[in-house]
Amino acid sequence: MNISLVLYVVGNVLFSEAVLMLLPVFVALLMGTGDWIYFIYTIVPLALVGFLLRLKKPKLSRMRTREGLAAVAFSWIFLAAFGALPFYFSGYFAGYVDCFFETVSGFTTTGATILTDIEGFGNGGLMFWRSFTHWVGGMGILVFVLAILPNMDGSTVQLLRAESPGPEPGKVVPRLKETARILYLIYFGLTILHILCLLATGMPLFDSVIHSMGSAGTGGFSNMNASVGAYQNPAAEWVIAVFMLLFGVNFSLYYLLLKKQVKDVLKNEELRLYLGIIVAAVVCITLNVAGKYYEGSWPDAIRTAFFQVSSIITTTGYSTADFNLWPTFSKMILVALMIVGASAGSTGGGIKISRLLVLAKTVKAEFRRLIHPRMVRAPRMDGRIIESSTVKGILIFFFTYIMIAVSAMIVISVDGYDFETTVTAVLSALGNIGPGLSAVGPMGNFSGFSVLSKLVLSFCMLAGRLELFPMLILFIPSTWKKSY
Amino acid sequence: MNISLVLYVVGNVLFSEAVLMLLPVFVALLMGTGDWIYFIYTIVPLALVGFLLRLKKPKLSRMRTREGLAAVAFSWIFLAAFGALPFYFSGYFAGYVDCFFETVSGFTTTGATILTDIEGFGNGGLMFWRSFTHWVGGMGILVFVLAILPNMDGSTVQLLRAESPGPEPGKVVPRLKETARILYLIYFGLTILHILCLLATGMPLFDSVIHSMGSAGTGGFSNMNASVGAYQNPAAEWVIAVFMLLFGVNFSLYYLLLKKQVKDVLKNEELRLYLGIIVAAVVCITLNVAGKYYEGSWPDAIRTAFFQVSSIITTTGYSTADFNLWPTFSKMILVALMIVGASAGSTGGGIKISRLLVLAKTVKAEFRRLIHPRMVRAPRMDGRIIESSTVKGILIFFFTYIMIAVSAMIVISVDGYDFETTVTAVLSALGNIGPGLSAVGPMGNFSGFSVLSKLVLSFCMLAGRLELFPMLILFIPSTWKKSY
Repeated sequence: MNISLVLYVVGNVLFSEAVLMLLPVFVALLMGTGDWIYFIYTIVPLALVGFLLRLKKPKLSRMRTREGLAAVAFSWIFLAAFGALPFYFSGYFAGYVDCFFETVSGFTTTGATILTDIEGFGNGGLMFWRSFTHWVGGMGILVFVLAILPNMDGSTVQLLRAESPGPEPGKVVPRLKETARILYLIYFGLTILHILCLLATGMPLFDSVIHSMGSAGTGGFSNMNASVGAYQNPAAEWVIAVFMLLFGVNFSLYYLLLKKQVKDVLKNEELRLYLGIIVAAVVCITLNVAGKYYEGSWPDAIRTAFFQVSSIITTTGYSTADFNLWPTFSKMILVALMIVGASAGSTGGGIKISRLLVLAKTVKAEFRRLIHPRMVRAPRMDGRIIESSTVKGILIFFFTYIMIAVSAMIVISVDGYDFETTVTAVLSALGNIGPGLSAVGPMGNFSGFSVLSKLVLSFCMLAGRLELFPMLILFIPSTWKKSY
Repeated sequence: MNISLVLYVVGNVLFSEAVLMLLPVFVALLMGTGDWIYFIYTIVPLALVGFLLRLKKPKLSRMRTREGLAAVAFSWIFLAAFGALPFYFSGYFAGYVDCFFETVSGFTTTGATILTDIEGFGNGGLMFWRSFTHWVGGMGILVFVLAILPNMDGSTVQLLRAESPGPEPGKVVPRLKETARILYLIYFGLTILHILCLLATGMPLFDSVIHSMGSAGTGGFSNMNASVGAYQNPAAEWVIAVFMLLFGVNFSLYYLLLKKQVKDVLKNEELRLYLGIIVAAVVCITLNVAGKYYEGSWPDAIRTAFFQVSSIITTTGYSTADFNLWPTFSKMILVALMIVGASAGSTGGGIKISRLLVLAKTVKAEFRRLIHPRMVRAPRMDGRIIESSTVKGILIFFFTYIMIAVSAMIVISVDGYDFETTVTAVLSALGNIGPGLSAVGPMGNFSGFSVLSKLVLSFCMLAGRLELFPMLILFIPSTWKKSY
């Protein structure tokens, strides 16, 4: 691997992080909290390391697949490693690994927390930074999946990309920078709109910003112990539920909307399935919980079910109810949604709707072939034939996803948590959701896990966020062979 | 579909079942229990239906894939439907669905039971029949996978077959009947040897036969409430553990042994991985349970760990300890083994070692391609290149397996059992294991599930046993279109 090239990229990323950290300093000074100093402590070494890494320009700048993937993986790892320092300096966490876990959870837009008392953390620069990592991470993943990936070679794209073969801004707008700029604008615009809507429901400004950044990145960090449920504000719940859903849509579709290609958007198969799954899940959960848990109050039951379904399928992880207490049927639906995940090209995680749609179509085609061997018809999505290499890439992705999940479950089970906690903690981390069930349910947290488990879960969050392979190739010895 | 052809095949199978039912009649008469009469009640209509179905010879006897798969699926369903009648007539079960579940569990060599008091059932014709279904089912699956499947067309074989590309008796011995005869002999010989070994440990004859039939089919029905643990007989535990392991090996390898090709057997990659996984799992579980659960008695801990690992990976399901009380780490390993399953071409269930080996090799090759795009090397198994169509077939199998599991979990979760019970009941049924964890643990049973759940679990057992697709195509409307 051409390591100097990778380090150069990471240096650029760290330098940007130092610049981004000026924002929490500004917020802390504005709010009069003293925690701005922890950011200054961090910015100085961070900028220095970034500067030093950028100093040595790589001899050869041609980026091959392995350098590209390693650069993406290391960027995310170092973003979290340095981003954890303000938390560490604050002394509010038990140790550096806890801070690292919390920051990985932030940048990967997972939202799983170590904190047992979130409110005790106080509203200030640190709380802003914690949620700001979601917003930055969400933007980062959009750029990675929609702007960087399409410029990589074919085989990488097949493995890492869950795109439907439909609209691709990477093809519509050929230049990387231009694509990234459009994505920034859509992302930024939706976030501002989200903040305004929350303010309109009477939520305080700081809380509106925190929750909007959490929705935008489909992260899920709240500044309240009881998450969104703390506000007892039905209007705010509706607003957040709808915006989570919007951030779980493929951003290419917003680009098409801007170009007024409404028809293409409405015909998009992934979008239809995404909305279909949401409606089905909301109906099932509402019927399951209405009588017993909401004493027949349908508006409450529907709102809570919709909020939770939107939160879990988009892999955000906010909660307005302790769904850990719901019947097993509702819980199983939520667990299934954790695995499914949001749309490709959104800020959400999980396996992604479009991947599952491609696989379902493949299985259907396979059945057709078994029953009518002479009628060969290739499966299609959005009118285009699905390439056989795409199918293979997605199938390999699916297998790898399940294997990582089962392996991680075995490792963290050493901690001795119950089966439900063990299984859902991993599914939640790998799918970038946040809460799981039982001890890591919406009212629980991840503080009780061992250091090893926290690192394994951090790995899962990073692997899930970066579509598995960039993190995995770091563990392949031949990746590290020197080459220029 | 050419239904008359399918019915003709089913008629033959039912006629054979009527003949097989003479054995429990004989056993009951020999032991002087009165339950022989329930078999007579069954044999009469069974033989009649079989006779009637065979009466109408199909016009065209060419069997295409769809007829082949439907014939296999219906044969298994009707075997269970009629095989359940003696249980039903006995009045010992709560209803016909319970009897059907128990018999499906028998023929699919699952071993999941509805009975809360097995010993109360009494040792006689019915108890013999219950375990005999395991033995018959095990033989049936060997013939299906090793003799019938290789004679089907290519695409079907890819989907349904987990064979390593290594030795195939179907190719060595080209004729179906000859292959089946050799398999029968090996299976029969090993069973007799098993009975003799158990007798040598002091186990009574009836119990030895029951447990040998259960091991042979990797079924797991015992005539004791506490399963094999009831005997407190370490020698018997070792014997059963070793025989379960032997029945979890690809039977093609025994054929090679008979032909004195020992080298090929020792080099077989699936066999090596199978033994490797067993050793690793035994070591982990022994270390995990020795101190706390066996008070430092290493022989007890090792024997119990080995017995349980052998029982679960081969998907038999016998137990000598209530592993439901073990630490989560040991339980997670057992759950992972439930998914892995035994070797292809054995009587065991699960996804199968060779399938996972092919997929692991595929992922490894994919990584090599990402890192060194110019070095294209196809993955190999037992020295032969793995065809890309085989890989695709296995990947589709894997995806379908997980989808069936998750869907079934959602449906049975309506019953409101805890998460652990819900998840492991389905994994256990689909992998043809028998016990799961929590309420369906080794000391529990499946009696508490609703009728719907029992039918869904029966479907899972049948789907898992028949490599998924024969059961699934019954639900595709176009399978049923009339054709000759």
